[in-house]
Amino acid sequence: MTKRHPIGVFDSGVGGLTVVRALRTALPGEDIVYLGDTARVPYGSKSPRTVEKYSLACQHFLLERGVKLVLIACNTASANALPALREASAVPVIGAVEPGAAAALAATRAGHIGVIGTLGTVRSSAYAKAIAARDPAARLTALACPMLVPLAEEGWVDDDIARLAARRYLAELFARDRAIDTLVLGCTHYPLLRGVLAEAARELAGREVAVVDSAGAMAEAARDALGSAENRRSEAGRLDFFATDTSRLDELAPRFLGEPLTGFELVDL
Amino acid sequence: MTKRHPIGVFDSGVGGLTVVRALRTALPGEDIVYLGDTARVPYGSKSPRTVEKYSLACQHFLLERGVKLVLIACNTASANALPALREASAVPVIGAVEPGAAAALAATRAGHIGVIGTLGTVRSSAYAKAIAARDPAARLTALACPMLVPLAEEGWVDDDIARLAARRYLAELFARDRAIDTLVLGCTHYPLLRGVLAEAARELAGREVAVVDSAGAMAEAARDALGSAENRRSEAGRLDFFATDTSRLDELAPRFLGEPLTGFELVDL
Repeated sequence: MTKRHPIGVFDSGVGGLTVVRALRTALPGEDIVYLGDTARVPYGSKSPRTVEKYSLACQHFLLERGVKLVLIACNTASANALPALREASAVPVIGAVEPGAAAALAATRAGHIGVIGTLGTVRSSAYAKAIAARDPAARLTALACPMLVPLAEEGWVDDDIARLAARRYLAELFARDRAIDTLVLGCTHYPLLRGVLAEAARELAGREVAVVDSAGAMAEAARDALGSAENRRSEAGRLDFFATDTSRLDELAPRFLGEPLTGFELVDL
Repeated sequence: MTKRHPIGVFDSGVGGLTVVRALRTALPGEDIVYLGDTARVPYGSKSPRTVEKYSLACQHFLLERGVKLVLIACNTASANALPALREASAVPVIGAVEPGAAAALAATRAGHIGVIGTLGTVRSSAYAKAIAARDPAARLTALACPMLVPLAEEGWVDDDIARLAARRYLAELFARDRAIDTLVLGCTHYPLLRGVLAEAARELAGREVAVVDSAGAMAEAARDALGSAENRRSEAGRLDFFATDTSRLDELAPRFLGEPLTGFELVDL
């Protein structure tokens, strides 16, 4: 790989743009090729077999574009397809779970961590395994929260319904472990709901709860993986955005990216 | 077509089982082949191009199984792909929109009808066209309600969050036309939320609002289309259930079908 090759990022949809946003801050000189599999979104409620099949197709698309590094900006794909994706790639592949687990262990004081994510991420036990491998004494409690992705996409992120949903899910999480002091947002959509989730966690715990997500940690992991192949030029890198369906992209993408979308290209996988 | 051939029904997922339920009541002797495209669900937020492509693949699967009739038990697919599906089929194809529009016109007294559905259904204007073709004097107001499918799938159908969501959407609908006296549930998932939707409509209108869906009307349309090919034997017909992803089927399918699922088969499309 060389400096001038782009970094490839894929996600089931537009949630992974929260990772692109962190990447553009941490590594501003890098070109990025992003693929959102918006025709088959969501992955979160589907079986490992389906998630692996679709993830491999996404990565194949990125590899054909000569990326020097692949970031799986989707926790469900990371949790269910990382071994298959690494097996199929000649360039390094970074998932969302390992960086998220490392960020949680860095933030916790008591070693009691809660993770919320999709059904597919929670069923995979990927966070439990990643945390146990780094700190066998840490205690992880995981809960699937299927309504949070639709809420983030509908833009209902800071109202009575969002607060009730956050409180209902987190009440179940804290009922399982009252000592949780760190909450991992184990889905790239969830940072949009950070406010109501942090508030509900604080109320339920009766104290501050650290809220971490994978995006920043993934960007740091990308820098480490690039080493001397990092593109440190002074001009800003470009973002090439591909999607398998274009419905609502203009509306949804900027919410996650934090800047307007300058264009996108439709692809069939 | 002959009596002993099955009826084919497809949907983006499991919501279409509300149509199977009506079909098994109206035409109990018929064998049914059901396909849920659960690997690519939902269709409701996706573009007409994607919906048409996936719908054609679903129908092709059913036609290969020798069905005598195809029911599109998905309003989004009916609204966006009916002409292409009819073009590609040698047997009759019944969509969800025409029967739903007819049911609405039969129920309304003042001719003011509201329809709620997915983004794809509402953007297609299919209900507006179907109603205008039958009664140019009727007035239709349509609203997309993206949160209602996730709520129905999460089983949050009769609680504070469901009530708030129903009220928020329907307040917008009634703000556009205070005289609505008939509400069409333009998505096969919505019958599960009938209670909170009817309650919110009644409160907002200040009087009873008729709530209709397509399922019963589709079953009647199926009987009309079959004519002498209706299977009137006394034993109950079988239901062969196919899905493109098996995740959560055991949990979700019975809610829509109204009876336990005896088995399913995984297929790749």
